[in-house]
Amino acid sequence: MPENRRPFDYLSPLDARYYGTDTELYAALHPYLSEDATLAYRIKVEQALIAELEASGLAPAGTSAQMAEAVRAVTAEEVYAEERRIRHDVRALVNCICARLPEDVRGCVHLFATSYDIVDTARAVQMRDFARHVLLPDLSALGVTMIGMARAQATTVQIGRTHGRHAEPITVGYWLANHIDRLGQRAEMVALTAGHLRGKFSGAVGAHNQLALQWPADPAEFERRVLQRLGLRPSDRAVATQIVQPEFLTDFGHALVSTLGVLANIADDFRHLMRSEIDELAQRTDRTQVGSSTMPHKVNPVNFENVKSLWKAFVPRMVTLYMDQISEHQRDLTNSASSRFFNELVAAVDYAARRLRAAIADTDINPQAIERNLRASSAWIIAEPLYIALALSGHTDPYETSRELIERAVGQSKSLAELVRTDPDARRLVDGLEPQHQAVILDPSIYVGDAAQRTHLVCEVWEERLEPARLGAALRRPGDHTLVA
Amino acid sequence: MPENRRPFDYLSPLDARYYGTDTELYAALHPYLSEDATLAYRIKVEQALIAELEASGLAPAGTSAQMAEAVRAVTAEEVYAEERRIRHDVRALVNCICARLPEDVRGCVHLFATSYDIVDTARAVQMRDFARHVLLPDLSALGVTMIGMARAQATTVQIGRTHGRHAEPITVGYWLANHIDRLGQRAEMVALTAGHLRGKFSGAVGAHNQLALQWPADPAEFERRVLQRLGLRPSDRAVATQIVQPEFLTDFGHALVSTLGVLANIADDFRHLMRSEIDELAQRTDRTQVGSSTMPHKVNPVNFENVKSLWKAFVPRMVTLYMDQISEHQRDLTNSASSRFFNELVAAVDYAARRLRAAIADTDINPQAIERNLRASSAWIIAEPLYIALALSGHTDPYETSRELIERAVGQSKSLAELVRTDPDARRLVDGLEPQHQAVILDPSIYVGDAAQRTHLVCEVWEERLEPARLGAALRRPGDHTLVA
Amino acid sequence: MPENRRPFDYLSPLDARYYGTDTELYAALHPYLSEDATLAYRIKVEQALIAELEASGLAPAGTSAQMAEAVRAVTAEEVYAEERRIRHDVRALVNCICARLPEDVRGCVHLFATSYDIVDTARAVQMRDFARHVLLPDLSALGVTMIGMARAQATTVQIGRTHGRHAEPITVGYWLANHIDRLGQRAEMVALTAGHLRGKFSGAVGAHNQLALQWPADPAEFERRVLQRLGLRPSDRAVATQIVQPEFLTDFGHALVSTLGVLANIADDFRHLMRSEIDELAQRTDRTQVGSSTMPHKVNPVNFENVKSLWKAFVPRMVTLYMDQISEHQRDLTNSASSRFFNELVAAVDYAARRLRAAIADTDINPQAIERNLRASSAWIIAEPLYIALALSGHTDPYETSRELIERAVGQSKSLAELVRTDPDARRLVDGLEPQHQAVILDPSIYVGDAAQRTHLVCEVWEERLEPARLGAALRRPGDHTLVA
Amino acid sequence: MPENRRPFDYLSPLDARYYGTDTELYAALHPYLSEDATLAYRIKVEQALIAELEASGLAPAGTSAQMAEAVRAVTAEEVYAEERRIRHDVRALVNCICARLPEDVRGCVHLFATSYDIVDTARAVQMRDFARHVLLPDLSALGVTMIGMARAQATTVQIGRTHGRHAEPITVGYWLANHIDRLGQRAEMVALTAGHLRGKFSGAVGAHNQLALQWPADPAEFERRVLQRLGLRPSDRAVATQIVQPEFLTDFGHALVSTLGVLANIADDFRHLMRSEIDELAQRTDRTQVGSSTMPHKVNPVNFENVKSLWKAFVPRMVTLYMDQISEHQRDLTNSASSRFFNELVAAVDYAARRLRAAIADTDINPQAIERNLRASSAWIIAEPLYIALALSGHTDPYETSRELIERAVGQSKSLAELVRTDPDARRLVDGLEPQHQAVILDPSIYVGDAAQRTHLVCEVWEERLEPARLGAALRRPGDHTLVA
Repeated sequence: MPENRRPFDYLSPLDARYYGTDTELYAALHPYLSEDATLAYRIKVEQALIAELEASGLAPAGTSAQMAEAVRAVTAEEVYAEERRIRHDVRALVNCICARLPEDVRGCVHLFATSYDIVDTARAVQMRDFARHVLLPDLSALGVTMIGMARAQATTVQIGRTHGRHAEPITVGYWLANHIDRLGQRAEMVALTAGHLRGKFSGAVGAHNQLALQWPADPAEFERRVLQRLGLRPSDRAVATQIVQPEFLTDFGHALVSTLGVLANIADDFRHLMRSEIDELAQRTDRTQVGSSTMPHKVNPVNFENVKSLWKAFVPRMVTLYMDQISEHQRDLTNSASSRFFNELVAAVDYAARRLRAAIADTDINPQAIERNLRASSAWIIAEPLYIALALSGHTDPYETSRELIERAVGQSKSLAELVRTDPDARRLVDGLEPQHQAVILDPSIYVGDAAQRTHLVCEVWEERLEPARLGAALRRPGDHTLVA
Repeated sequence: MPENRRPFDYLSPLDARYYGTDTELYAALHPYLSEDATLAYRIKVEQALIAELEASGLAPAGTSAQMAEAVRAVTAEEVYAEERRIRHDVRALVNCICARLPEDVRGCVHLFATSYDIVDTARAVQMRDFARHVLLPDLSALGVTMIGMARAQATTVQIGRTHGRHAEPITVGYWLANHIDRLGQRAEMVALTAGHLRGKFSGAVGAHNQLALQWPADPAEFERRVLQRLGLRPSDRAVATQIVQPEFLTDFGHALVSTLGVLANIADDFRHLMRSEIDELAQRTDRTQVGSSTMPHKVNPVNFENVKSLWKAFVPRMVTLYMDQISEHQRDLTNSASSRFFNELVAAVDYAARRLRAAIADTDINPQAIERNLRASSAWIIAEPLYIALALSGHTDPYETSRELIERAVGQSKSLAELVRTDPDARRLVDGLEPQHQAVILDPSIYVGDAAQRTHLVCEVWEERLEPARLGAALRRPGDHTLVA
Repeated sequence: MPENRRPFDYLSPLDARYYGTDTELYAALHPYLSEDATLAYRIKVEQALIAELEASGLAPAGTSAQMAEAVRAVTAEEVYAEERRIRHDVRALVNCICARLPEDVRGCVHLFATSYDIVDTARAVQMRDFARHVLLPDLSALGVTMIGMARAQATTVQIGRTHGRHAEPITVGYWLANHIDRLGQRAEMVALTAGHLRGKFSGAVGAHNQLALQWPADPAEFERRVLQRLGLRPSDRAVATQIVQPEFLTDFGHALVSTLGVLANIADDFRHLMRSEIDELAQRTDRTQVGSSTMPHKVNPVNFENVKSLWKAFVPRMVTLYMDQISEHQRDLTNSASSRFFNELVAAVDYAARRLRAAIADTDINPQAIERNLRASSAWIIAEPLYIALALSGHTDPYETSRELIERAVGQSKSLAELVRTDPDARRLVDGLEPQHQAVILDPSIYVGDAAQRTHLVCEVWEERLEPARLGAALRRPGDHTLVA
Repeated sequence: MPENRRPFDYLSPLDARYYGTDTELYAALHPYLSEDATLAYRIKVEQALIAELEASGLAPAGTSAQMAEAVRAVTAEEVYAEERRIRHDVRALVNCICARLPEDVRGCVHLFATSYDIVDTARAVQMRDFARHVLLPDLSALGVTMIGMARAQATTVQIGRTHGRHAEPITVGYWLANHIDRLGQRAEMVALTAGHLRGKFSGAVGAHNQLALQWPADPAEFERRVLQRLGLRPSDRAVATQIVQPEFLTDFGHALVSTLGVLANIADDFRHLMRSEIDELAQRTDRTQVGSSTMPHKVNPVNFENVKSLWKAFVPRMVTLYMDQISEHQRDLTNSASSRFFNELVAAVDYAARRLRAAIADTDINPQAIERNLRASSAWIIAEPLYIALALSGHTDPYETSRELIERAVGQSKSLAELVRTDPDARRLVDGLEPQHQAVILDPSIYVGDAAQRTHLVCEVWEERLEPARLGAALRRPGDHTLVA
């Protein structure tokens, strides 16, 4: 019998550090992702089976109720003890349930089922429930926080950066809007692929062999009814091996890992904007926080670094999921241990979303620095609109002309606007442009395209679509949709 | 000026071995995936831009026609020579086009465009075209070959294998049907994600800055019109950085890599069924083929091994795509070289599909071996139906009873059927079962569930849905569908 | 204050299933890989620092002793509570230590240190200790078990298999010897790279800035002395950023992951030899074990499958280590969370080694099946020696001649030996060969080269070199060796 | 017969862009990494075999000379044509050689050899030669360029950055020195692992079966002699399957990939220091270069971005090498295609080293920006030395005291030095410190530890050890060393 132990007795940083010591995170994840939860979901599938057997007249009336009573008392401790004895995890669970049932109904428990009818089906329900009740709401909350910031900064002009170098201006809101839009689409992909997860109840080699003993005409009908009790469906043609076709989980994994990629990109942007020289964002601090163990003044973007670091830790695990697509013949078991680690991936993505949300909520914007950085490049910003304005005015070599003009200004340590005032050639060029183009060249901070309008559009769309109930809609109607048709 | 060279002068095995020396493959892939093709697709985007400028009155009437003439003469050789001079690939292309145009329209070329408006948009068209014209038809052809084999073997009973050990029977057709069903779904995912690829035309930082110079009210309208000429759309809210939101390509990459996983699983199954001891399948050989350089008799499943090996080579590359989701601020260029290798991945998946199809078409089935292997386990096969039949007849401990009976039979080196004839206890047990259950126990080869029916169902569905025109439907209506909504 | 909880309350399968519920594994790993252990090793480094400060006269005599007393009472619980308050893990540890020391010596604690002087140095000691005391002995034990089996089967002739097809014979011992030899070399690589791990004590940016305040002439001398107390060295030129040069850990990670690859290859071979049709190996079973939840007779190679599955789960994590080679400027923190997961990798490799050893010890050899499989191909085996013998006898086209002869035999359903008796051409060919070559063709089971001798050689060498004390030698003399010079 | 084609007809960006169009790179890599080269190295192994057969009296005197003549005329074109006919690559090569030899010696060609005796042995020689003649000199050249820069900037004080935030000062030279030191160690690891590559000549299942026909007493002696002619050895105990133990190549791959990690880290640092706001480094430009297709002024760190991007493309491929450690029984062929791609990895690392060297040589240092950035944080820099000085002077809570002082200064918008002049408490604190500590606080730019000295030490060591001849020493004495003993 394993002892109760402190989180610090454990190995995994998820358990020992992030989950085991964070009361709120623990409470949120335990019902879905703990080993206890995995067992509980397997029990749920066994119950759905019994209920259907009872409905079919193959189990005595009342068996479901007896079973409901029995499973209430089953503990992981005794299941593991039984597994240690007989070395089979699902059979151990069945034995523990049976031990609490009258002899005459024991034969009904697990009847017609092979282990992976239970295991794979349970995982589908577990992941769908976690997505609906925890992950999607957490992604939604992150989106909402970002939307608030984007709305507030929709018109704050900021220099855009490509290759780390100043390019053309955008607004702070627009920078965020692009990330919100990507995040929103990923959240919908998570919902779609979670809602697309399937169960099975077709036996050891997937051909409904065992069900055909009882229902030779349409053995898959019983499978459909058991799964329906769990809000699930089998694969569209109800074909399988011992396990569910792996791609449903692979797609869900891809949704998770690519969501983590968006989170990491957001985190990277925030931490780079907190660089000392850029300083456009800063982490809000309080008196008790220690920045560095020897440099008391340093406030570091540790939360954003943490999100990026989780990405490093988890994105390669997608390769494991791709490896698990391959199973020899009607299955080998080489995906057993590896797929148990799937819960870690799901937990990590959720934790990253929560931590990123908190970190963004804790971020201050420094308008002075944003303004300063923008102004530092105002001369250069003009190059592009100048080039285009020249082209639109019919200039034959606008690119080279614009380039030469910029270089002349730089050579004289002047902004282009200043050059225009002193250099007749430059003046002549500018005078030949449309008035609204001249305006942009005089005030490059208006060269922001539709940044503000698009920001509001994006916010509006995702305020609606990131609403958890709406996100969860993909999950509500199991099987009414298909991913690929 | 680079010389013409032999394939064997090159480094990549794709080029030197698989593509460069295979006339048919070369002809199929060159128009879409070669460096020439990449340039050609970029030119196509520049042409769409000119056409739209002309339609908008910003380029003189007839410019499109002049451009069409000009680009006909542009060669990769001169673009690369120009790039070597100015060190910028897209500007080099623009210069080469301009050099062939009258001076007065040169300013229209590439007007409003930033390099990645061209590069990312071109890639979307290129990949969509390749999917439609080559990859989807090749996946379809593979499916058709497998469907033919599955139909022919729909009722050939084969022992199912789990953990490499004999489990319960299926049919050869059903084994294939599960793979066909997975393949079909992946092909549809390829079509869906290819059809979902997007372009952009929103400038250096993605805010339509440059277009707003001309069309301040709705600068994105011009973007939509340019892309529409290519059968594309921008992202749903037309937001971007310098580059298209990466997830559209990431999803397409996932579709490709997970398709390769299904191909590898199929290949693994075929090669394992060709093991000397199993021998259920064999590669058809001809007189000229050499099996081994020292063992003339050996015919090895090299084609299936090749497909698995390509999977090993390419599945980790998905990590590169996940890395390329992250781009600092309005983009860094650290996805430039890495994304050029994407063409290799696409080519490899297509090559694997073609090679797998040919290998399957070249496979003989050995019914004697299938029968022999099935019979070898016929005693064991009975254990499961016996257990279930006992349970259905109300036996209280059917699992243990069945287990003990099997062990008794094995202890006496008898099949269960034989044991029943000599052992009164065994006989009594069996006599208590339903007649149709007794039948299964007497002839375990009928214990195949709905394997044959499902095989035909799967074949019927995919005969229709794998039809290339139907598969391509997802590609025909760009933007009419969304992946996630 | 986090509660004590059951293993089943946790997420990670390592914690909840493999480590948390296995008393022996828990006892072995807890002192090195748990979060408690990580803290304990950090304390060890703080103690080494205090000791050196005391020796240098910068801490009052007796401070070390006071500190030894103080740290005894420090718990992870209070360190985490303090971290929650100040949001800095190492400073939290320092505060907890200081709280138990007299005011006048508190300033000595952590003096001159930056957090990662402690963290990275602690990890090096922790990993070296785990390698010496647990992992290397476990790899050694696995080797010893395999050596026992190889010795016993050194001369048992077995058909060798390439491409899954029968090739030429080896011996069972020789098959194992190759794996033993690979395993032994990996164990030595683990020892070498663990012994090569380095610490640092050079401050926030790695230039010994803080130490130069006190010792301007040779500030690195103090670093060397602190590390020496822990049996460590800094990097060879004592250069660093805030963190130790990452490659020492990357190399250790490579040693671990490539070791896991050898374990997975061994596991794959065992499980394939347990296939129903091959049957050369079998898992020993006992009465209580359940093979399948519905097929009571099935005994599956679940332990070998588990080892392969752990490989799938952990091999991609090497990519995380490669990502962690990159740290911006004098370090970013994006390796913080990711590197915490390193403990999981180390634990998994050790667990895989233990489980593989137990599984091999639990494996029975089936000489009848080995003999049967060998005989099934005896005709074919002759092809290669025949070809070579023909060549050695001066035949001009031995390859084709041998090939034709084999085909003729097969066409007549005869072994080559039989063909020789009836076919004058065949007889003539064979008669022209050297007598010892004719012997091989008459009895292909002697065509095993030096399989037996090499088996014994390999066993002899590794019996000596896998001795834990000898393996640990690489770890005993920190810094006396270098990996690359 | 495949046609000659332009680079742009190919798929791989390596071939079409980086290698095929770069005369110098092409000339350097073609002799080692092209498909031609692979064939040439296989021929070399066949020649070593013939030479040894001749020396052993098994081939007529003069056969080597005839063979040397024959192979001169063999082309990849005809080998591929023959392979197309017989579908076996190595046998095709053998046939092409034989076709040019007198009938009576044809039987000697490839005698005793299995395909992978040739293939794996050839690869070892090929990689060793490439490392010696190209890759190590290129890594050396990169080191030399960096050493030149580090020497020149050994004392240029620069603010060190951790978490992207200003920390404590180092020197530009020291920043580089750490990278040089890492690079040097990786180059030595490349040399060591390349020198450690092994061949084999032990036949189809690795037990020297075929050699024992001729030399029953010590069949491995012939293997040793063939390999010695190529400067190689077999594995230490001369055990193998059909292929060389995979770990020798895996280790070499790890050396390559981890070298690429160091290159990518260097590239990242350079490009971040080129950010507009930091501006400490700049790419030297010339008049013809185009920075952006629409922003003529922008000079982007594209070369450094390219190196990072190559890292993204190639680091995941290490997973393929780990997958290729697993081969069923005496080998399956699922590493065949995947291992052909190894040449791409080697080429990419070399290309990255070359491009990085050129980019660094093309980088200007901006001392004004370095000075400006340093000064911007001079107040903060003092915090750490102040804290330590306080501690050394016996202060009881130096960390909090230092922290409060800094905050007071910041609150008054003063530097600490200024605060000391006006705030009696601050003055008192500082007056109580050692004079040399006060000096540092007055001029934080001297707070650089031993940065300059260590820079020179590192440069000195690697000037010597990166000398190509010295680096190649590990390669000169094949087999005199072992990696792990």
